[in-house]
Amino acid sequence: MDLIALQDTLRRFAAERHWEPYHTPKNLATALMVEAAELAEIFQWMTPEESMEAAQDPDCKQHIGEEIADVLMYLMRVVDQTGIDLDQAVRDKLVKNAHKYPRPM
Amino acid sequence: MDLIALQDTLRRFAAERHWEPYHTPKNLATALMVEAAELAEIFQWMTPEESMEAAQDPDCKQHIGEEIADVLMYLMRVVDQTGIDLDQAVRDKLVKNAHKYPRPM
Amino acid sequence: MDLIALQDTLRRFAAERHWEPYHTPKNLATALMVEAAELAEIFQWMTPEESMEAAQDPDCKQHIGEEIADVLMYLMRVVDQTGIDLDQAVRDKLVKNAHKYPRPM
Amino acid sequence: MDLIALQDTLRRFAAERHWEPYHTPKNLATALMVEAAELAEIFQWMTPEESMEAAQDPDCKQHIGEEIADVLMYLMRVVDQTGIDLDQAVRDKLVKNAHKYPRPM
Repeated sequence: MDLIALQDTLRRFAAERHWEPYHTPKNLATALMVEAAELAEIFQWMTPEESMEAAQDPDCKQHIGEEIADVLMYLMRVVDQTGIDLDQAVRDKLVKNAHKYPRPM
Repeated sequence: MDLIALQDTLRRFAAERHWEPYHTPKNLATALMVEAAELAEIFQWMTPEESMEAAQDPDCKQHIGEEIADVLMYLMRVVDQTGIDLDQAVRDKLVKNAHKYPRPM
Repeated sequence: MDLIALQDTLRRFAAERHWEPYHTPKNLATALMVEAAELAEIFQWMTPEESMEAAQDPDCKQHIGEEIADVLMYLMRVVDQTGIDLDQAVRDKLVKNAHKYPRPM
Repeated sequence: MDLIALQDTLRRFAAERHWEPYHTPKNLATALMVEAAELAEIFQWMTPEESMEAAQDPDCKQHIGEEIADVLMYLMRVVDQTGIDLDQAVRDKLVKNAHKYPRPM
């Protein structure tokens, strides 16, 4: 997965459809949350065990994949429209989490 | 950004802390949604224009970066725990979107 | 709106359909969030001004009303399944907010 | 719980703090979703069984109550700013659900 290429593809896709005025960080963050909710909706009435086996059903796996793609695509649009260095942000967060949740002995 | 390496790092991080029983697709999808909500919260009272300039403030940019990293990290955990082929899912969704929203003439 | 009567109606509705095993606080809170996302989705690409006039369109108003009803209904199910005293919780929160956001002179 | 009185209280509270320009349906719907996410966050790593007993802990019950109050308060602000007839919307939705999910014999 080449995220830089994806970011470029999505930027061009939005530009060709004249969607830039709609793609403010505010709107994109809401759209991202809505897609994340659609992913959570798939699992909402499942037991934990059922959720672990859900992707064994091809239709359900397809559905999960679509919602995951939507989340990633809106996330890359937010990254693009806010100028975040995603690599750096993830590295920083990994360091922060390693301090917050030290590895048990 | 090497998403496969990130996926491995996060899997090991969770395993070392014995988090696997908590990291069901159901729980991870909810956690992803909660992080997406924290990103949207940053922009919730801003005008569209303010949201476009928000990342010019270093503290706000830092905050945005952290929430984006959290979203991506939970997304990669969901991908890992459901066995989704992220590359394929994104390619499929791009094709689907190109049909759904044809490029205007 | 008699919220106690609504709570009873919803409890009976769930019981008659044998939904109690699914109606854990955890699942209901996720369902509530999903419905809240569906409400937010209505406004996600609107400007602030457009969102203020959205309910002038009868179809849009109908849609908003349905999502609001869904949110309230899941909220009352969470209230019921956690034994929260909603009156008291709202009174406490109003006092807390009045301290947190003092009235400007 | 007198929802009309609550609606009036919240409207006055917002007006006294000059919050009206921020309280567009769009912003309020996002804020509602964020509060719903904070409620779901309480339960996100719990098993279904743990979530059913969560409110037995006084601190957790207090926390649940606060998030529920926040959800209801933003919901009433959306109702107010969109002019929805909440009674009618809930009645309509109950009828719709009774058709969608008929009572089993």
